[in-house]
Amino acid sequence: MSQENKAIVLLSGGLDSTTTLAVAQSQGFNCYALSFSYGQRHDAELNAAKKIATLLSVVEHKIFDIDLSVFKGSALTDHSIDVPLAHSQSQDIPITYVPARNTVFLSIALAWAEVLKINDIFIGVNAVDYSGYPDCRGEYIKAYECMANLATKAGVEGNKLSIHTPLIDLSKAEIIKLGSTLGVDYSYTVSCYAADAQGKACGNCDSCHFRKQGFKEAGIADPTLYI
Amino acid sequence: MSQENKAIVLLSGGLDSTTTLAVAQSQGFNCYALSFSYGQRHDAELNAAKKIATLLSVVEHKIFDIDLSVFKGSALTDHSIDVPLAHSQSQDIPITYVPARNTVFLSIALAWAEVLKINDIFIGVNAVDYSGYPDCRGEYIKAYECMANLATKAGVEGNKLSIHTPLIDLSKAEIIKLGSTLGVDYSYTVSCYAADAQGKACGNCDSCHFRKQGFKEAGIADPTLYI
Repeated sequence: MSQENKAIVLLSGGLDSTTTLAVAQSQGFNCYALSFSYGQRHDAELNAAKKIATLLSVVEHKIFDIDLSVFKGSALTDHSIDVPLAHSQSQDIPITYVPARNTVFLSIALAWAEVLKINDIFIGVNAVDYSGYPDCRGEYIKAYECMANLATKAGVEGNKLSIHTPLIDLSKAEIIKLGSTLGVDYSYTVSCYAADAQGKACGNCDSCHFRKQGFKEAGIADPTLYI
Repeated sequence: MSQENKAIVLLSGGLDSTTTLAVAQSQGFNCYALSFSYGQRHDAELNAAKKIATLLSVVEHKIFDIDLSVFKGSALTDHSIDVPLAHSQSQDIPITYVPARNTVFLSIALAWAEVLKINDIFIGVNAVDYSGYPDCRGEYIKAYECMANLATKAGVEGNKLSIHTPLIDLSKAEIIKLGSTLGVDYSYTVSCYAADAQGKACGNCDSCHFRKQGFKEAGIADPTLYI
């Protein structure tokens, strides 16, 4: 197996990252899936990632432990720290918020890529439904790629590292259509912020809302298991 | 205290990062020190970082747990993974090697900066003594800064995030002279790869060699405690 057809795919266990994995495989890449245990409220997402990694026969699936909540805690609970907006912040930051998330996740993917001598990293960012996040835009991804190519010996030696974002300009409905043509079984994916232990979705949170709407617009039956 | 005079400083406990912390403080920054527990062979470096953070009265010192060795292990021990150069790699990679190190460390600093609304990050990279590492060059740091300013809301909203590298063009002797004028007590810093439990240096490894040479060239008595 040559290095050229290996890729690392960031896999949360949700709809977008699962579709991204299917796209990478459809392009002929042998995929190494990377998930993060970063203090999620429930295990349903990571359990979904494990199932999907097995179903789609990835070469290897790594779940990387990283507890970024230590920073959040410090700013919001330590009164010796001067954070004037602490109270309003605690209301603004959603429970699932991870600071500098895509930058941290891509950097850890880059570390793995360096060890495995892999030049291709896939991430399911999407600028359409989540246009509020700066680190989901093409401009950001391009800057990350530029930085990554200066960061490692491989990049400097001319083995260009590419960050692939196949979903970046697609709507949720278009993502679902794309995944469906690639045979993705979305019943295994978990998008809900409040999923139960079996991975069943609440049907009411923001993430459930976008997902439901997507299936509706795509004209595809929603296989999501609801509580 | 305004946000303008707060900074995050990456602090390993070695000579360079300690000098960097002193420089940041001399520029009027109230410093938040960030160290990493990433599977170092000995605790001496982190113990030194703790002592230095206390001595220099940083606002807060965080030791962040991140085990990047899980990637190294996987490539070198899992025979199901196709790594043709695994054996030669294991000889090439020093025991202290951390893949994509500065990128991962800066990204975690960026996460903390985002939470604390800090716009200044200091890192003691140096392009002179370690010119072999791509992620110690000014070109890389500039690209990182550019990416970071696209990654977070603060950057997008015009609060420019700066990565400061006060040592980047200095020789080891110049760094030691600079730190000495700022009152750094280098007897507390640990650079040695094989330091003992008390932080005493072996005097023989590469790192000890560069450090010894630096004090000699600077014409400053070497306060390092040797075994």
